[in-house]
Amino acid sequence: MPAEHRSAGPAEGPDAPAAGVPLGDFALLDVDRRRRTGIPEVVFGPGKTPEQIFALLAELRARDPGAPALATRCPARVLDEAARRFPGQAVLADQRAGTVTVGALPPARGHVLIVTAGTTDLNVAWECAATLAVLGVGADVLADVGVAGLGRLLARLGDLRAAECVVVVAGMDGALPSVVAGLVSAPVIGVPTSVGYGVAAGGLAAAASMLSSCSPGLAVVNIDNGFGAAVHAAKIIHAVHR
Amino acid sequence: MPAEHRSAGPAEGPDAPAAGVPLGDFALLDVDRRRRTGIPEVVFGPGKTPEQIFALLAELRARDPGAPALATRCPARVLDEAARRFPGQAVLADQRAGTVTVGALPPARGHVLIVTAGTTDLNVAWECAATLAVLGVGADVLADVGVAGLGRLLARLGDLRAAECVVVVAGMDGALPSVVAGLVSAPVIGVPTSVGYGVAAGGLAAAASMLSSCSPGLAVVNIDNGFGAAVHAAKIIHAVHR
Amino acid sequence: MPAEHRSAGPAEGPDAPAAGVPLGDFALLDVDRRRRTGIPEVVFGPGKTPEQIFALLAELRARDPGAPALATRCPARVLDEAARRFPGQAVLADQRAGTVTVGALPPARGHVLIVTAGTTDLNVAWECAATLAVLGVGADVLADVGVAGLGRLLARLGDLRAAECVVVVAGMDGALPSVVAGLVSAPVIGVPTSVGYGVAAGGLAAAASMLSSCSPGLAVVNIDNGFGAAVHAAKIIHAVHR
Amino acid sequence: MPAEHRSAGPAEGPDAPAAGVPLGDFALLDVDRRRRTGIPEVVFGPGKTPEQIFALLAELRARDPGAPALATRCPARVLDEAARRFPGQAVLADQRAGTVTVGALPPARGHVLIVTAGTTDLNVAWECAATLAVLGVGADVLADVGVAGLGRLLARLGDLRAAECVVVVAGMDGALPSVVAGLVSAPVIGVPTSVGYGVAAGGLAAAASMLSSCSPGLAVVNIDNGFGAAVHAAKIIHAVHR
Amino acid sequence: MPAEHRSAGPAEGPDAPAAGVPLGDFALLDVDRRRRTGIPEVVFGPGKTPEQIFALLAELRARDPGAPALATRCPARVLDEAARRFPGQAVLADQRAGTVTVGALPPARGHVLIVTAGTTDLNVAWECAATLAVLGVGADVLADVGVAGLGRLLARLGDLRAAECVVVVAGMDGALPSVVAGLVSAPVIGVPTSVGYGVAAGGLAAAASMLSSCSPGLAVVNIDNGFGAAVHAAKIIHAVHR
Amino acid sequence: MPAEHRSAGPAEGPDAPAAGVPLGDFALLDVDRRRRTGIPEVVFGPGKTPEQIFALLAELRARDPGAPALATRCPARVLDEAARRFPGQAVLADQRAGTVTVGALPPARGHVLIVTAGTTDLNVAWECAATLAVLGVGADVLADVGVAGLGRLLARLGDLRAAECVVVVAGMDGALPSVVAGLVSAPVIGVPTSVGYGVAAGGLAAAASMLSSCSPGLAVVNIDNGFGAAVHAAKIIHAVHR
Amino acid sequence: MPAEHRSAGPAEGPDAPAAGVPLGDFALLDVDRRRRTGIPEVVFGPGKTPEQIFALLAELRARDPGAPALATRCPARVLDEAARRFPGQAVLADQRAGTVTVGALPPARGHVLIVTAGTTDLNVAWECAATLAVLGVGADVLADVGVAGLGRLLARLGDLRAAECVVVVAGMDGALPSVVAGLVSAPVIGVPTSVGYGVAAGGLAAAASMLSSCSPGLAVVNIDNGFGAAVHAAKIIHAVHR
Amino acid sequence: MPAEHRSAGPAEGPDAPAAGVPLGDFALLDVDRRRRTGIPEVVFGPGKTPEQIFALLAELRARDPGAPALATRCPARVLDEAARRFPGQAVLADQRAGTVTVGALPPARGHVLIVTAGTTDLNVAWECAATLAVLGVGADVLADVGVAGLGRLLARLGDLRAAECVVVVAGMDGALPSVVAGLVSAPVIGVPTSVGYGVAAGGLAAAASMLSSCSPGLAVVNIDNGFGAAVHAAKIIHAVHR
Repeated sequence: MPAEHRSAGPAEGPDAPAAGVPLGDFALLDVDRRRRTGIPEVVFGPGKTPEQIFALLAELRARDPGAPALATRCPARVLDEAARRFPGQAVLADQRAGTVTVGALPPARGHVLIVTAGTTDLNVAWECAATLAVLGVGADVLADVGVAGLGRLLARLGDLRAAECVVVVAGMDGALPSVVAGLVSAPVIGVPTSVGYGVAAGGLAAAASMLSSCSPGLAVVNIDNGFGAAVHAAKIIHAVHR
Repeated sequence: MPAEHRSAGPAEGPDAPAAGVPLGDFALLDVDRRRRTGIPEVVFGPGKTPEQIFALLAELRARDPGAPALATRCPARVLDEAARRFPGQAVLADQRAGTVTVGALPPARGHVLIVTAGTTDLNVAWECAATLAVLGVGADVLADVGVAGLGRLLARLGDLRAAECVVVVAGMDGALPSVVAGLVSAPVIGVPTSVGYGVAAGGLAAAASMLSSCSPGLAVVNIDNGFGAAVHAAKIIHAVHR
Repeated sequence: MPAEHRSAGPAEGPDAPAAGVPLGDFALLDVDRRRRTGIPEVVFGPGKTPEQIFALLAELRARDPGAPALATRCPARVLDEAARRFPGQAVLADQRAGTVTVGALPPARGHVLIVTAGTTDLNVAWECAATLAVLGVGADVLADVGVAGLGRLLARLGDLRAAECVVVVAGMDGALPSVVAGLVSAPVIGVPTSVGYGVAAGGLAAAASMLSSCSPGLAVVNIDNGFGAAVHAAKIIHAVHR
Repeated sequence: MPAEHRSAGPAEGPDAPAAGVPLGDFALLDVDRRRRTGIPEVVFGPGKTPEQIFALLAELRARDPGAPALATRCPARVLDEAARRFPGQAVLADQRAGTVTVGALPPARGHVLIVTAGTTDLNVAWECAATLAVLGVGADVLADVGVAGLGRLLARLGDLRAAECVVVVAGMDGALPSVVAGLVSAPVIGVPTSVGYGVAAGGLAAAASMLSSCSPGLAVVNIDNGFGAAVHAAKIIHAVHR
Repeated sequence: MPAEHRSAGPAEGPDAPAAGVPLGDFALLDVDRRRRTGIPEVVFGPGKTPEQIFALLAELRARDPGAPALATRCPARVLDEAARRFPGQAVLADQRAGTVTVGALPPARGHVLIVTAGTTDLNVAWECAATLAVLGVGADVLADVGVAGLGRLLARLGDLRAAECVVVVAGMDGALPSVVAGLVSAPVIGVPTSVGYGVAAGGLAAAASMLSSCSPGLAVVNIDNGFGAAVHAAKIIHAVHR
Repeated sequence: MPAEHRSAGPAEGPDAPAAGVPLGDFALLDVDRRRRTGIPEVVFGPGKTPEQIFALLAELRARDPGAPALATRCPARVLDEAARRFPGQAVLADQRAGTVTVGALPPARGHVLIVTAGTTDLNVAWECAATLAVLGVGADVLADVGVAGLGRLLARLGDLRAAECVVVVAGMDGALPSVVAGLVSAPVIGVPTSVGYGVAAGGLAAAASMLSSCSPGLAVVNIDNGFGAAVHAAKIIHAVHR
Repeated sequence: MPAEHRSAGPAEGPDAPAAGVPLGDFALLDVDRRRRTGIPEVVFGPGKTPEQIFALLAELRARDPGAPALATRCPARVLDEAARRFPGQAVLADQRAGTVTVGALPPARGHVLIVTAGTTDLNVAWECAATLAVLGVGADVLADVGVAGLGRLLARLGDLRAAECVVVVAGMDGALPSVVAGLVSAPVIGVPTSVGYGVAAGGLAAAASMLSSCSPGLAVVNIDNGFGAAVHAAKIIHAVHR
Repeated sequence: MPAEHRSAGPAEGPDAPAAGVPLGDFALLDVDRRRRTGIPEVVFGPGKTPEQIFALLAELRARDPGAPALATRCPARVLDEAARRFPGQAVLADQRAGTVTVGALPPARGHVLIVTAGTTDLNVAWECAATLAVLGVGADVLADVGVAGLGRLLARLGDLRAAECVVVVAGMDGALPSVVAGLVSAPVIGVPTSVGYGVAAGGLAAAASMLSSCSPGLAVVNIDNGFGAAVHAAKIIHAVHR
């Protein structure tokens, strides 16, 4: 391989991803992520100590003061203490969603409809809604319209068709996203949940059903991943409202 | 254990299952099955030679002349030769269902509606219909009303609600039985099919979705088991029309 | 698609499923379900707070005063407090079944026999029995007749054959439903349970064995789903005693 | 449920999904799908006879003459005979993609970049490209830029970042979509493929890796489902270029 | 089926399994099991209350006073209280094995060698040993001779070859039974254990390895099933020392 | 480690396994296996060329002229040509069992009963029988007594109880071995078969059911492994008739 | 097999593995392991009591005083008490790694780079580092360079290429090892971790992705097995610096 | 992110991976791979046409004339035609390994011992050996020393201990690598194979057993991946003989 070819190497210039910013000996913050992907780095709570979560939120705030910092799946202690750990800042600790937001939310653009099959799927929907708020995307939640009582969904066809993107959250059989994807022209994102038991297998049955959907174009994220669905939806809304 | 207890032993009298009837060194016909369960023994084709299948059909006919004999999942050679192997008898070789029936069909009672999600699920539906005919149960097939185009199903709500039992055959996401079970008062039987690919996993995704259904009361049989669904449905119809 | 075709749209008229009734921001009650399916909406406890469960029971009672309301898989606190949360009403809190019933039970029609393979399968059987009571169906439980001691089952052949529907609850090998389905003419419903360990895999071995049954017509519900088996059985009994 | 509530029933009016159009006894065409979802019904080849595929293509053309009809995963005979079965019409039979298109393609809007990890993933990419063409969406294919030689991808960062939507097709480890999703602001869709062997398990390893991605916002479709990825991408492009 | 055939029915006479003996509404004791199989009914602890376990032990003792009664996998409370619940009787509560034995042990015949791969597999080995003692079979335990240090096993070849039956208990890779089965002429029984993590999958890796053994004649029982291995071994020893 | 300890090393003396005998560059015959385990090395056909199989049979015969040589799962060509490849020797090519035996069979001792659930399980039973014949063990086959028609089994209780060891071969639900193990005092070996479809999963459902048996003492071998069951049974019979 | 062949038996002489050293009735220490494999026996904590762990550490120290003894995955009590249980000895109790080391560490040779995808993977990395220290191998940890922010990894290409062996620890998608293996000439070892949820399945998704890697030469150890990766790496470093 | 940080971007300079070289529209050759990893790009045959394989081999030869080009898992036609497609060049088409090598082999350094459990594992061993030859590494194959006849392995302890790296190829139980890893100080690589049936599950049982090994330091590659094992071994040998 001639050296001159390498020197005209691939990952230079304004597109190249930047090196990270170290925090203690446990993290290397990807502070360049918002520039590259439109989505800032977010703190995933499980496996981290409360102190690590607070330190990461503080550092993200410091590095990118114009945007709120978000932590998901926070343990109870983080949710309880968040407000007093960031005095003088806008702090939202959503017990239902398990999220902590530090910093003022940006104005919302666009409209995502988050639909759930049952009451128990709501935590995932609320994580999705909290994330969309941080990403500057407008969202509503339509709860408990599972296919066992189809009339509940059909009565809201107008709302469904008005959304620019639909996130459908369902456990057990995972059937609702397939039904919704056959009714609307907006992109539909399926979020399987771990609601159910036995062969539902922690959401694997719902995930497999959604991925095997007979309704074309349904795209799927991981089980209980309301955050991931929000990011995919936000990228779509960002593209539409660019 | 006192001997007198044993001599008043459990499985005597008219309820006791009878011993079988040997055929060659490869089968022991359960000719008592119809007395016990209302369903005669049926020949399951796979793994048997054509000669074994024909011999079993002949023996079943001989032992129970008042009813037709049925073989399912027959290889092509059995389907092709069946008519001339049983001269003078009513023979139905259904290429789509893979079934061979020898002997006149009984009159049909009751009404089962067999619904399929897609065109490709029809073979399983036809196996179900052929079995119901042998068992003296009336049946109709409503094809290709999967949830991707919900209007096709909703337009037939009247038919669905008129049936005494509904068999719903679906591959891929396996969502249709959950939708149907929420719409009708008749018992609903789900038949997952091997239609699909990838995570559909030969029907396992559909089976898991159906077993995890949010619609209460959906009962499920094995993948592609149109025969088993027919037997469960027939037992219901027999009870209703006793 | 011509507009006149759409205006003669599919899901209108008396058959159409009705819209739901909102409760707080977390539920949309399917109060139309009993009209459509013969089975009222039931509260599934897991993932709901005690207050949500009580609120749902109260709303179901208010919307459909002529029938009892049922909650399944209730946490201990709901079972303990149920009686004093509904003063002046008939309340049954079944610790073994995990169910709470509010309102007088309807008179029982028909006869379902619930059979268990072992002692440990009884909780599932009791959930099934409690549900059948709410649905107005008569039921008996025959416990601990697993195939390891076949004489226990054979001694009760008369009872088995007298039932209009048989629910067979079994964990571990899941063999009992296959044996029972070969002995009776009534429809048989298999309920795999999570009893067992190792390769029993939380009931998956039993479920797979039942779905693969060599006894034709065995239909299966989810692992530990005594409720679902009861609903399928009730739909059968309702059809027989219409 | 009061009748007047039902008569103001849910699924009426212009939003309601329409009933299907029967074809023989094997299909019920969802000719209303394009109105509802922006995506016409498409013929899925496997399990259908060549004659069924040709009949469905003809019917779709007749019902919706302004748009091309598409069949995917066509058997060799359909690919070979397609041109002479539709004389006088524009017919594209793409041997690599396994698709047949009948009717003139619409003009292309927007820009989707389809990226593959390896050479063997190309069939899936070509199915995706053929579908996008039918749906009026512009697309390019960038082949063989898997993570084993990261320079190949980094050299094309400009192209990646210029796309409005990126579809990443990868078998084996399924790592490429996670890498791409961390580099671009456009929505990214992962398509696992069945390329690989052993624990790759027909694409399940790639699918699980993509669904578990550490890169937020990656949405996934079924294994080898280039068609489904194209539909999700087209819905996004349609929204952007509305 | 002619009535006379049925009246000469199958399960009569001294071989027929006897009906069970009810205990409360939760158990039907198979007190005939020892006559049929040489193995008395044993109480499986999980899922039973301490009171149920004690009641079952007492009933088994009363019905078969000449033999000890055994309960396996007992919760701590049962182990702790057993001695004072059966005053005046020989009671063994083995904390390591999780077993409770009530009644004097029979004299031991024959010789089973129980071999474990590691220290952590010992609980399963001790359950096996306790069961063999109840069944009147002599046994020794050889601990911690896993294949990572093959010299430990090879140094005991003489002991291995002297046993009449060898039970090999191993978790993780499950390799030891395959090695032992290639070294001895006695029947070898493999017991996979749940020792391990990750892909060991609670013993499924060990179980699969043993079932796939290249050493002919290795027979396998469920994961952690020291009891079942003991019963199979006892049936062999009973046959040898008849 | 002191050297003198090592020089008194573990695997010396008459118990030590001997080195193998090379054959071409593809095999190292374990001609010492019969001395160690009572079971000679046997040729496993799959993946070997016919020439390799014939060479291995010839070498085994030459090394151990007093015993027959056995090859299992032989391809058709080996079965067809075996007789003329070993002129002057007793050759048995069993088309149903897939086995080739070269050399005179030893006299049979003991009595194993091989029971099958269905007709299609017979190939596995015949492999088991052919192996037992080579190992000098007497055996009978009782075919088609599956649990769907329990009377067939109960009518043969006397035969079952007379056997010294029972091998139960069953596919689909795998229920029969659990039933048999509760009826006899002889050791019972379960052989799951790949008979079945859908969730039967090539025999995995039957294997899991057998391993999870509620009948104590059932030991299990790999799916379709009639050979392995025969070896375990032979080791038992050898011990009984030593 | 002639006796003289056996007496020239296989496993004699200085290469033969030695017999173990018993400790209580629960362990047989493989004190010969370091001679054979270069790696001393190590105490695996789970399933052992604190007293057993301390006894094993003491015995290992006594048998091999020139090297430190190591216990992994220690429960909290062992970590807390270790220092005072071995007075006068160098004791390292690493809370993050879960390891206890007793005895002075040997000087470090060579250089292994341990790379983690995320912060939560660090416990596994620290177990790996602690093990390498005991084995006399130099190591550094580079944390949180997962593929979602590729710039973090590319900025450290120099460090990656300078290592003699690279251990890559990653959960979720398991993509990082495939990327690293395409960038360096040193051997790369992948360690999947249980970090993640849903389809990540406790690390199975990451493990499957790594084993299916498109980057040639990636070798993989069990999920969360930092210890095993360290041993493989140490064997490589020992070979390089022999 | 300040631009100057980005302009001092990560992946520049001599370490950066280079862009690929396009071949037709189906491949982007990673001709820089040997510089980065010591291992040239290799053609993986499955899913490619013979013409594509020949074109890739030719291009690799042209780009890197000093080294041989390798294709693995070649279809029969490629193996048969290879010699005449590259006239005047050294061509090795190894029918057993499925490999084609074009160009003179480099001299061999170091010594890898490839060990197989059975005869049927040899194809994978030969693929490994052919790859090592291309990579300039010396290798021997020791066949058929599986654990069923341990003497075969113990007789070769000297050879095992003399190797610088040991590759152990085993299907079925996958036990052999665990045994070998406990006997030698060289790094050991396990290669599970698809040899076996039933629960062996195409090699998954062997893979799981190896990954769960009780012998520390065993590293594993994909099922049947003799090529990958060779690359990992070659990287080790390259490091040792640098």
